[in-house]
Order: sequence, then C-alpha cells, then structure tokens
Amino acid sequence: MKFIQSIQSMKSVAACVAACATIVLTTPAHAQFAKPEDAIKYRKNALFVMQQNFSRVGAMAQGKAPFDAKVAAESAAVAEYMSKLPWVAFGEGTGQGDTKAKAEIWTDKAKFNSHAEKMQTELTKLSAAAKTGNLDNIKAAFGPAGSACKACHEDFRKD
Amino acid sequence: MKFIQSIQSMKSVAACVAACATIVLTTPAHAQFAKPEDAIKYRKNALFVMQQNFSRVGAMAQGKAPFDAKVAAESAAVAEYMSKLPWVAFGEGTGQGDTKAKAEIWTDKAKFNSHAEKMQTELTKLSAAAKTGNLDNIKAAFGPAGSACKACHEDFRKD
Repeated sequence: MKFIQSIQSMKSVAACVAACATIVLTTPAHAQFAKPEDAIKYRKNALFVMQQNFSRVGAMAQGKAPFDAKVAAESAAVAEYMSKLPWVAFGEGTGQGDTKAKAEIWTDKAKFNSHAEKMQTELTKLSAAAKTGNLDNIKAAFGPAGSACKACHEDFRKD
Repeated sequence: MKFIQSIQSMKSVAACVAACATIVLTTPAHAQFAKPEDAIKYRKNALFVMQQNFSRVGAMAQGKAPFDAKVAAESAAVAEYMSKLPWVAFGEGTGQGDTKAKAEIWTDKAKFNSHAEKMQTELTKLSAAAKTGNLDNIKAAFGPAGSACKACHEDFRKD
C-alpha cells in the first residue's frame, strides 16, 4: 500500500515536473540582459503590463466596472501572455538595486518557481474563462489567479 | 488618365486603411486606466519590454552577439507581440507627467498612427524572418524595423 502510494506520488511529481517544464520552456531561453538593472526593469515592466490587464478583468469580476466581454477576453489574453515573460529576468546577480525582490528567490528557487508556475497556470485558466464570454466563469477563475499573485508576493516580495 | 490615377490612389488608400484597421483592432479596444500616470507607465513599460527583445535580435543581426536561432525567433516574437500594446495608453490627457511624449502625438494623430502601424508591420516582418532561422533574413528585416522606431522617436519623442 505504502509502495503504491509512493509510485502514485512519483507519477504525480513527474507529471507536475513535465507540466512545469512546458510552461518554463515557453519563455525565451538564455535571454540576456546588458546590465542587471535592465533585467530588474524588464521583470517589473512585464509584471506591470500584466497587472494592468489583470486588474481590468478583476474590476469586471468584482462588479467595479461594467462587464465588456471583448475587453475582458483581450485583457485576460494579454495578462496570460505577459505572465510568461518576467522569469528570465530573475537571473543570478539581479537581487540588488531598484527591486523589492527578496533574497529567498535565489535561495529557495524551487518554491519561487512553483509560485511562478502556479500564477501562469491560473492566468491561462482566467484567459480561457474570459474567452467563453461568461462573467460567472471569469469570476470563478479570478479568485485563484489573484491568490496566486498574492502568495508569491507574500513569500518573495519585500513590503 | 488623371481620373484613373485618382481611382488607383483611392484604392491604395482604402487598402492601407483596411490594413491599418486590422492592426489597430488587434489591440484591446476601450482599454481603461485608473490614472493618466498608469497609462504613461503602461506604454513606457510595454515599449521597454519590446525594446529589450528587439535589441537582443539586433545584437545578433549586427554581429555583436552570437547567432542563436531559437532565442532570435522567441525574442522577435515577443517584440512583435509587445508592439501592439502601447497604443491604447496614448489616450487624451496622458501627455503630461513622467513622459517624453510630444504634444504632436495628439495634434497630428494621423501621422503618429501611421508611424505606430509602420513599426508594428516591420516587427511582424522581423518575427517572420526570425522564424526562418536564417540570419541573413533577420539582417534584412532588422534595418527597416529599427528605422521605423527611429522615425517615430524623431517626430514624437522629446530628447
């Protein structure tokens, strides 16, 4: 019984690793930045563009803005796309400067990557929900996506 | 003769307007920003992410970095995608603040839009060239794309 659980657990881990690899490999590999400051600016800028689109969908999900299915779908699609970009810019040596990044990003990479992957997964779900044009679907997907952002900020971003 | 030229000219204009409309309509319509500062930050951040990816391809095109076909194709694709995002953030009332935008953006919109569309067209061509995996194709497409950036900066960006 214990052995079977163990096998199942290993299968789950393998499936998860495969899924994560798929997500990570969609970002530009070996991306290079001329200076650490460029990398810091790049990830902050990509995250801001993402956040603005995400918030536009969120305002509709939370009833703070009128629902516009087309804008919601377009904004969620941009947020999903942007969610793949920041990670190449968290290279070694980019923890100092104009950044709120905590050192734990580089000392606990597995956890950081797990958060990053979770966020991408949730934004993919949100984009899929927005494509249905149904506000209830968007509301259901928005919460988990917001929680994914928050969880990573709590662990890896300075106040 | 004059009449025929005129008809042909009208056809060209119509074709151009149709092409431009296609490009413009791929950006989120009616995108809203909470504050003018957000719009300014949004367009600057989107353009920075674009520029970083564009420059990575440029370094290869100019022999300043080793050619990596995969990175070139990925970076050019991101630059193409990003080229569609800034324009919704040039709304009325976003000409003041932390921006180098010239007032002419809003007083000569037709020219500004023409520049913006030209840049998107050239980055689409660059991305297509990069997808071929052939450095000569990338070199041929890089120049016109760089010129499109420069032309707009000269007319519409303060030094």
